[in-house]
Amino acid sequence: MNHIFYKPIGTIHSPFTNLEGMPIQPSAAKGIKGHIIVNEEYIEGLNDLDGFSHIYLVYHFHLSKSFKLKIIPFLDDQQRGVFSTRAPKRPNPIGLSVVRLIKIELNRIEIENIDIIDGTPLLDIKPYVSEMDDINDYRIGWLSNYRIEMNSKKSDNRFS
Amino acid sequence: MNHIFYKPIGTIHSPFTNLEGMPIQPSAAKGIKGHIIVNEEYIEGLNDLDGFSHIYLVYHFHLSKSFKLKIIPFLDDQQRGVFSTRAPKRPNPIGLSVVRLIKIELNRIEIENIDIIDGTPLLDIKPYVSEMDDINDYRIGWLSNYRIEMNSKKSDNRFS
Repeated sequence: MNHIFYKPIGTIHSPFTNLEGMPIQPSAAKGIKGHIIVNEEYIEGLNDLDGFSHIYLVYHFHLSKSFKLKIIPFLDDQQRGVFSTRAPKRPNPIGLSVVRLIKIELNRIEIENIDIIDGTPLLDIKPYVSEMDDINDYRIGWLSNYRIEMNSKKSDNRFS
Repeated sequence: MNHIFYKPIGTIHSPFTNLEGMPIQPSAAKGIKGHIIVNEEYIEGLNDLDGFSHIYLVYHFHLSKSFKLKIIPFLDDQQRGVFSTRAPKRPNPIGLSVVRLIKIELNRIEIENIDIIDGTPLLDIKPYVSEMDDINDYRIGWLSNYRIEMNSKKSDNRFS
């Protein structure tokens, strides 16, 4: 299997129209509101989603036109392997965020804690269910030096 | 943007060669070992990943050839909107699992708690960093009736 094709199921809307100053993860985007417009043909697939407080958004980093295998993340001053970061310039520019679900009306989903640029193509929505993961002996590598910064750090243009 | 094109970065290997009897999420796959072979051109991108105890795998449900907007999940006896489930037959058949990272040797990554079928094409690896999500007022909708079952339920062939 060499080529995989996906088609956006909708579009993510947020107050962030450019990369500069955007929060780099949901914990730094507390209270920031946005919404999703899901393409109408998929409305039925949204049934039962409103019972979940949080959802995963899987999306396409559409502004990312190339990738690097080693990058300097926003939180660090050293080069790190791209798969140990959430940087958008990845071999497959797939983004993943957990956001708070506020309300669903037909094909419009109101969300909060959004760290995503306006106009981002949405690929998938999944319920966030932490009980399904089995997390113990938890470690976060190079990021453990940046536990405080990660809740406030903003983006600059390095990945544009 | 109508078509998005990705290329696998590697392949996920597991003891599960068919869907029947496979755990349906990592919490039901405790201790089950597998490994990833990352394509050699991406080895450099794995730097620094070994400091993380858990990683997200983003992968392609390659056995899923069609989708339904309403499905009966393994854990339930009612039809649910597909986006409120982790079922593989989704408009974009993208899978997401949190697995335990055991060891990285060159392009081979040993992992544990794997709920993924052998031979699955891998699209992306991301560090699992729960501090980056902002989770409060947590609710899990229809799944809250199945908190016990979700740690043991196995797959059948309904999504093949």
